[in-house]
Amino acid sequence: MAGSFPPIARRPLPDGFLDDLKARFGERLHTADAMRRQHGQSEAHFEPALPDAVMFARSTEDVVDLVTLCAVAEVPIVPYGAGTSIEGNALPVAGGISLDLSGMDAILEVNPEDLDCTVQAGVRREQLNEHLRDMGLFFPIDPGANATIGGMASTRASGTNAVRYGTMREAVLNLRVVTPDGRDIRTARRARKSAAGYDLTRLMIGSEGTLGIITEVTLRLHGIPEAISSAVCAFETLSGAVDTVVQAIQLGIPLARVEILDDMQMRAVNRWSKLDYPELTTLFFEFHGSPAGVAEQVAAVGEIASANGGGAFRWSNLPEDRSRLWKARHEAYYAAVNLRPGAVGWATDVCVPISRLAACIAETKRDLQASAIPATILGHVGDGNFHVVFSLDPNAPEEMAEVEGINARLVARALAMDGTCTGEHGIGLGKQAALIDELGEAVDIMRTIKRALDPRDLFNPGKIFTL
Amino acid sequence: MAGSFPPIARRPLPDGFLDDLKARFGERLHTADAMRRQHGQSEAHFEPALPDAVMFARSTEDVVDLVTLCAVAEVPIVPYGAGTSIEGNALPVAGGISLDLSGMDAILEVNPEDLDCTVQAGVRREQLNEHLRDMGLFFPIDPGANATIGGMASTRASGTNAVRYGTMREAVLNLRVVTPDGRDIRTARRARKSAAGYDLTRLMIGSEGTLGIITEVTLRLHGIPEAISSAVCAFETLSGAVDTVVQAIQLGIPLARVEILDDMQMRAVNRWSKLDYPELTTLFFEFHGSPAGVAEQVAAVGEIASANGGGAFRWSNLPEDRSRLWKARHEAYYAAVNLRPGAVGWATDVCVPISRLAACIAETKRDLQASAIPATILGHVGDGNFHVVFSLDPNAPEEMAEVEGINARLVARALAMDGTCTGEHGIGLGKQAALIDELGEAVDIMRTIKRALDPRDLFNPGKIFTL
Repeated sequence: MAGSFPPIARRPLPDGFLDDLKARFGERLHTADAMRRQHGQSEAHFEPALPDAVMFARSTEDVVDLVTLCAVAEVPIVPYGAGTSIEGNALPVAGGISLDLSGMDAILEVNPEDLDCTVQAGVRREQLNEHLRDMGLFFPIDPGANATIGGMASTRASGTNAVRYGTMREAVLNLRVVTPDGRDIRTARRARKSAAGYDLTRLMIGSEGTLGIITEVTLRLHGIPEAISSAVCAFETLSGAVDTVVQAIQLGIPLARVEILDDMQMRAVNRWSKLDYPELTTLFFEFHGSPAGVAEQVAAVGEIASANGGGAFRWSNLPEDRSRLWKARHEAYYAAVNLRPGAVGWATDVCVPISRLAACIAETKRDLQASAIPATILGHVGDGNFHVVFSLDPNAPEEMAEVEGINARLVARALAMDGTCTGEHGIGLGKQAALIDELGEAVDIMRTIKRALDPRDLFNPGKIFTL
Repeated sequence: MAGSFPPIARRPLPDGFLDDLKARFGERLHTADAMRRQHGQSEAHFEPALPDAVMFARSTEDVVDLVTLCAVAEVPIVPYGAGTSIEGNALPVAGGISLDLSGMDAILEVNPEDLDCTVQAGVRREQLNEHLRDMGLFFPIDPGANATIGGMASTRASGTNAVRYGTMREAVLNLRVVTPDGRDIRTARRARKSAAGYDLTRLMIGSEGTLGIITEVTLRLHGIPEAISSAVCAFETLSGAVDTVVQAIQLGIPLARVEILDDMQMRAVNRWSKLDYPELTTLFFEFHGSPAGVAEQVAAVGEIASANGGGAFRWSNLPEDRSRLWKARHEAYYAAVNLRPGAVGWATDVCVPISRLAACIAETKRDLQASAIPATILGHVGDGNFHVVFSLDPNAPEEMAEVEGINARLVARALAMDGTCTGEHGIGLGKQAALIDELGEAVDIMRTIKRALDPRDLFNPGKIFTL
């Protein structure tokens, strides 16, 4: 099954190049087919693109040496974390080296008094939260998948907690980055804010490995709230659900999480996670605060939901209820893909001003209903961000073309509403035309920056845009 | 009185250039000495640097035309807002045109449901909040001075509310920017988050007009909280005050504002604003939330303050008490400068991890006490950010050298604590050596970006770094 993206030529390796790498990295350089295949495919619908070799880095020094060797030989490098991105962001479409950072998984420093920590890029978010729990701290960014922190920074990930705690853009204080000319730089210090020069931290976040390779990340943390409650509420209408969230946010209720799942997604969740929720548009909530504050939030949102046609507002203080709820939410992608046995997933996302969200979802739903391909809608409604997940028959290539059309209409709809073509997946291979539709000449400014920092186009070539 | 900064040559204007500008801009081009002098000085201690002319823009089209004319003639452009920056950020040290954007003061659009608005760059923050009040909305970033929104974006301003609401980095959704090659671009859309390509918004924020001229800004807004309380509490010890804030933040108490003022600053405030606070290290607080939530916050912080040696915790729900408090805080800079009649001000700031704040302030205070120059400390203690304001005798040039030494030691102290040389003032002219001490080779990456986007160094040359 093929995903369409701009063609880019594979670059041949110079003679003896892999021998040079082997001499430097020994057993950590892999050229076997199985390993190349594993790093040459994505979780989504894109055609595989194999690297020439895979290198497992253990340190920033490894990365500097790889970059230096590849610069001389003009060989591309594509950073690889957990492989959970879904716009083909880590596919080595021009060949070269897949730089696997998953072994750089040390938590280097936690400063509880400062509510921050520094980790290597390969640390995964669940591992980090496990480590922090006993200190009463947590790292809130949660894109669903158990991604690496470096990968999350590279794609500007966000997820279910962003409405309260922000995205990777807000969560990162400092990055250690290896640049295309082999420099090992730090983009900032550990202060919570700074006005010192250009914001290289934010320039690197979301650049998908095209400007630098992130090897260490300093993150803001939060205290685990004294009280946490969750709630579920089904709605007769989509607009009732969205209006509930808009009104709660306007009242300044500090929702920690609020997720929308449409009727199809609820059906998929019920089937996959063996649950029995009503198969209607549903909101999943989480509330953080003091016990009295959380109780007040629950009561206020319950009232707003009821006024907007919500059914029973089922809330709970019990951790087991909460775990079940968020486990179901986290598995929503797999639940959706598996609406058809043996199907392949295609996930897309857009983000619009929240006043347009109900209309954007409703129009999208009509478009989905006109197709026979099973598809679900779920989203981070507090941010105006939602996903569509398609369950594609791998033996029916015409479905791919149909989804391309639906996706193009979805992006056009979001842009017409002054929204963005991707809230949190990134551009990767799949949204390059959409990026130009969205930002026009600003993309030329991006290209100018890319050319200045990576003149030979060796860092993840072919992603975000072509040169 | 001279402030020391890297020398930069004034560039001569080509013959007939001002006539060309006059032909295009008519009466909006000013060449009279008085106007040039007004745009050639700063609020702080820097030596004046006069522009060759001042142009008052009325539209983005004006800015595009000016940029195009200046590009051909290789004449520098320095954007100018309210003139309230304090590191010489808007001084035209290489001559050229001071581009005054204060007349671009239209509030273009407010979207109450989306909690955002779009304004021209010359809108001032007090004007915006005046406009928003009846809609129940506010814009929280408050650097003290009644700065323009464009200037605040350019210097990555923050201020008293940053601990709760973030800085300009978090507040801006989208910028309209004229680039050095005369393009009129938008850096983003109105969605609350996006993963679409490089974060040009954040690259422009804090770039001090060296990469682009901001002409329009889309901002996140917040609902005016249902309840607001303020409080004042004096402490016997500096560490008692700082520990109070650290503990409150660790408990997740969502302080809206928390400011520290040392004994000297309290003396200055009492004198200037005719108040009678105890002349001890003092915290000013503000709490936002529901009535019950604010009461809970006040009670919790009151207890923490008392456990840390705080005196009476004087809190109030009355708007007039709150106004008096924040008026005194906003006038703190002028109060400090006027500790000596006829004095000139020099303000500096650093930001450190909050666990180091008490030590950083205490060491700084010892350094100040060894000098005869009156100086105060005040800061945004929740962020780890504090200011030192010196009251300099304009007829005693040796004081300037003495303050340079104190400032250099302050920066070195902050960097040794993994902090930054400026939390919110920017680099401008005054902190260029400090920036290199702080970020080393990363500054070369900044220079590479500057050269790529502005190869002739026409946009605010000589600021942040020299090429």
